[in-house]
Amino acid sequence: MGILEYFPVSDNLTDNQRLVLEESAAARSAPKGTLLHSGSSDCIGLFVVRSGRLRAFILSDEGKEVTIYRLFERDICLFSASCIMSSIQFDVSIEAEQDSELWVIPPDTYKKLMEESAAVANYTNEIMASRFSEVMWLIEQIMWRSMDKRLAAFLLDESSLAGSDKLDLTHEKIANHLGTAREVVTRMLRYFQSEDMVSLTRGSIELTDRAGLEALAK
Amino acid sequence: MGILEYFPVSDNLTDNQRLVLEESAAARSAPKGTLLHSGSSDCIGLFVVRSGRLRAFILSDEGKEVTIYRLFERDICLFSASCIMSSIQFDVSIEAEQDSELWVIPPDTYKKLMEESAAVANYTNEIMASRFSEVMWLIEQIMWRSMDKRLAAFLLDESSLAGSDKLDLTHEKIANHLGTAREVVTRMLRYFQSEDMVSLTRGSIELTDRAGLEALAK
Repeated sequence: MGILEYFPVSDNLTDNQRLVLEESAAARSAPKGTLLHSGSSDCIGLFVVRSGRLRAFILSDEGKEVTIYRLFERDICLFSASCIMSSIQFDVSIEAEQDSELWVIPPDTYKKLMEESAAVANYTNEIMASRFSEVMWLIEQIMWRSMDKRLAAFLLDESSLAGSDKLDLTHEKIANHLGTAREVVTRMLRYFQSEDMVSLTRGSIELTDRAGLEALAK
Repeated sequence: MGILEYFPVSDNLTDNQRLVLEESAAARSAPKGTLLHSGSSDCIGLFVVRSGRLRAFILSDEGKEVTIYRLFERDICLFSASCIMSSIQFDVSIEAEQDSELWVIPPDTYKKLMEESAAVANYTNEIMASRFSEVMWLIEQIMWRSMDKRLAAFLLDESSLAGSDKLDLTHEKIANHLGTAREVVTRMLRYFQSEDMVSLTRGSIELTDRAGLEALAK
């Protein structure tokens, strides 16, 4: 499939704009773990996810992380091209969470398309509003939901992403997703285990009582 | 001043679009304390701030608040017109924090302008990216900055907004801005007082050591 098929507003483009988009988009493979974008120092272009999964996260000065959202097949990542908008005044990092295939659209090409085409500009607005909604959801979680509920919800989400009740996740990694300390995660997982909701083995967590976790996550 | 002067991209509009904008924008006065927009239940239109100050905040099920950003003269508020974009899937509340004068642009009018004009759509993108940046800043504050630093920074910000070292703010109100409990604010303000950084009287707080607060806020 070409880039145009990943781009829902391509019908609204002129033949020439479609050609420019096709010729400028570069295919890129990102093996699991690749750090694709780090802060605002680079402006490498928009990522269009062809397959795999990306994770967007922020990083504190002390190296602490918190996941702000994930990008799945057909999702478009704007913030690896923050130079397309002067008002984007924050840094996110993007890593491939699974082996991923991407299109990379150069920022200048995209900026020109946005300026020429109201359809592209409005589509970009919708993408940003989606990410904004995810970030607002995250704020509500952080402000008003206790860590045990967040952890239960996180385990259930991960389990449906993985399509399995067994998760290969270290406590460290979970802590980075939730923006907390590893010790907090370990303590809470042990509590979940004592309640027979999970079973812990080295490097993996098995969900043994989904209903219990769901009740807690609510 | 007419609405067009508050609208930086109005030069890019056609005569007809300018006329539509002028004729549809309604002037509105909002005395201090007016709740202008509450959650997603209404879609009353975009607010253009002519004077005064608006506050955008989110509200938990239990009635707890946290301020997410402020809107000043010439700022435009999109989220009181969330129906213009289907991807805006979150609720904010907007109140007049001072006596304010606004223009209100009907959502349908604005949506049509965005669809017709790439300039309007791109300007809308910049507005959203600005708010996004403020919200990302807030997440970093919440995740990684301790409450004493946040309170010190808040008092300094309020003091520069008010143009005075004396702030007429209750502890309850500060707690609502920061998304914490009144008791936490009271305890911390008493600690600041014991360090001679503030002086507390009933219903007001005076900053007596700005340098000390600034050092703490860093």
